[in-house]
Amino acid sequence: MAVHYTYICQPSNNNNITFNHKTGSAEIATMRKDLKVLVSSNDYPEAGLKILREHFTVLQSRYNHFGEEGITQNKEELLQLAPAISALVWVSHHPITQELLDKAGPSLKVVATASAGYNHCNVDELKARGIKLSNTPDVLSPAVAEVAIALMLGAGRRFTENLEQVHSGQWEIGFQKVLGQEIRGSTVGVFGLGGIGQAIVKRLAGFEVEKFIYTGHREKPQAKALGAHFVSKDELLAQSDFVILAVPLTNETKLMVNKELLGKMKKSAILINVGRGDLVDQDALYDALKNKDIYAAGLDVTTPEPLPKDHKLLALPNLFVLPHIGSATVRTRNDMATLAARNLVNALSGKPLLTPVLS
Amino acid sequence: MAVHYTYICQPSNNNNITFNHKTGSAEIATMRKDLKVLVSSNDYPEAGLKILREHFTVLQSRYNHFGEEGITQNKEELLQLAPAISALVWVSHHPITQELLDKAGPSLKVVATASAGYNHCNVDELKARGIKLSNTPDVLSPAVAEVAIALMLGAGRRFTENLEQVHSGQWEIGFQKVLGQEIRGSTVGVFGLGGIGQAIVKRLAGFEVEKFIYTGHREKPQAKALGAHFVSKDELLAQSDFVILAVPLTNETKLMVNKELLGKMKKSAILINVGRGDLVDQDALYDALKNKDIYAAGLDVTTPEPLPKDHKLLALPNLFVLPHIGSATVRTRNDMATLAARNLVNALSGKPLLTPVLS
Repeated sequence: MAVHYTYICQPSNNNNITFNHKTGSAEIATMRKDLKVLVSSNDYPEAGLKILREHFTVLQSRYNHFGEEGITQNKEELLQLAPAISALVWVSHHPITQELLDKAGPSLKVVATASAGYNHCNVDELKARGIKLSNTPDVLSPAVAEVAIALMLGAGRRFTENLEQVHSGQWEIGFQKVLGQEIRGSTVGVFGLGGIGQAIVKRLAGFEVEKFIYTGHREKPQAKALGAHFVSKDELLAQSDFVILAVPLTNETKLMVNKELLGKMKKSAILINVGRGDLVDQDALYDALKNKDIYAAGLDVTTPEPLPKDHKLLALPNLFVLPHIGSATVRTRNDMATLAARNLVNALSGKPLLTPVLS
Repeated sequence: MAVHYTYICQPSNNNNITFNHKTGSAEIATMRKDLKVLVSSNDYPEAGLKILREHFTVLQSRYNHFGEEGITQNKEELLQLAPAISALVWVSHHPITQELLDKAGPSLKVVATASAGYNHCNVDELKARGIKLSNTPDVLSPAVAEVAIALMLGAGRRFTENLEQVHSGQWEIGFQKVLGQEIRGSTVGVFGLGGIGQAIVKRLAGFEVEKFIYTGHREKPQAKALGAHFVSKDELLAQSDFVILAVPLTNETKLMVNKELLGKMKKSAILINVGRGDLVDQDALYDALKNKDIYAAGLDVTTPEPLPKDHKLLALPNLFVLPHIGSATVRTRNDMATLAARNLVNALSGKPLLTPVLS
């Protein structure tokens, strides 16, 4: 027997009307076109916009945070669009300024940053104003972990020197030329066995790694299944062939990789950073690489970004740098945009944030 | 009670005198200083030389096969040193010429190439002359597999474009810029599930690959444990997001990747070659990449090597090229040198080759 659902449906594209099988009635769950959501750049994926448009009135900057004049134009437009918004989707690593929050005013209830890190989100100010904050952890862990492994291979197998040879047409392919180090047989040490750190160790399961170790504030319940052993920071530095930074940038972790820490690493060790550039004292790293106190480094993040093309780090043959592409895949950027949008839908309909930083 | 071993020991560094616990007598197993072994280049690792010097008189070229005048000097010296050698250690991908074999004469009993591939070894001629041939498979599989995965990540995550941005100091780090493809969720198809192919699949176990498939002459018993499914060539091409070439170069496989094969790949597919450059029709690959008939390619091998710096392939943004560094690690090159030397020791003392090509 066919069941007939009778309810009033708007003729628009809004498809957020759901049939409640328990009460037998349709309900317009969360559609609030009177609420304005501001999207901070022009390159926020359609997957996220679609969700937002179904529920809210969406304002969006026509610019993004990059390019010739992008930063200025973007900033000005955001200030113009901010008054009376209820929510803000933040799509860059640029800081959320007090000026912008002032323009938005007390209507602003929630910020969703499309990133795992939230060091740029002015957390103290948001907290003081009672504004909620969500991020997008976990969905980007696999993509970032893939880049971490690419950096391990790129630094260990001396890509910077090897690619320079490809560009110059002068391959030194004698039997003992440009020999690198393998992941096989190495001890891999992870600072921060959170989502990204775990995704890295998981992906290395087939590489014949000798030993996985990690350090942090406390042991992680997930570590056992991954075969990772908790050690002190100094033990990790003394033992690791690869030292991987997968921690958020906080007051505690800022510049944690300094001269002293680098001095405790093995001469054959390789440093990998997929966290934030400011985890590393770049002058100290430069010296360590220049003096061959460590073997190599692979960075997906630097300070600043972009790194100027004449920056001294880029002259080092034993440094492999990628331009912060950890989460830069079609699938993951869509997942991040979707998760950011869903956080806002929840927050503006009185439900808990899916991935809260401030709730 | 102490056992006293009484035997005559040479005062030299020769340490190949072994005590036979069964017969109770010492025996000089294989030392034949009257036999000359020729090592084809100056950069054959000490690990291999040490073994050879313990058993034989070692001749070695002062040059190698590369560099400004290296090829000519190396070739001339090899011809001078060749007469009356019993064995030849071949340390390059250059061809073993009939001229060299003629110079060596009938004393030459065995050639050990320090490589897995032996397409350069003039196999038909060696066979006709009754000369044995060994290669060094397996020991290099892990190192080559690591490079294969680096190529998958490098091509999928658009390293060529991204590294160009790092060099120019112009990172396009907007949310939707330079987005790549992940290994996660992909179907990985391998041509040739031999030692290298298996090592690749093994290493990808933690990457959340959707499906592993392979093709070849027959199903491999090792495939089941790796979770890899045997399919036809056409099925592999139709399904794979990554198509990996891990086959030797033979008359059958030469130029196997041609216009027709590329035309059967998905538009989103990525081609990886860690075999030999001549597996691929490079003009057809250029067209496919230029026209975006496939998404990208990653090559550790090309024709010729080095690829000239103005070669059209190097102008493609969706091609990532490494300078044939598959086995180029300290550990693996030592293992290859050791295995090549041990093959010769066996062959010249009447024992079977450890890794025979012609026995």
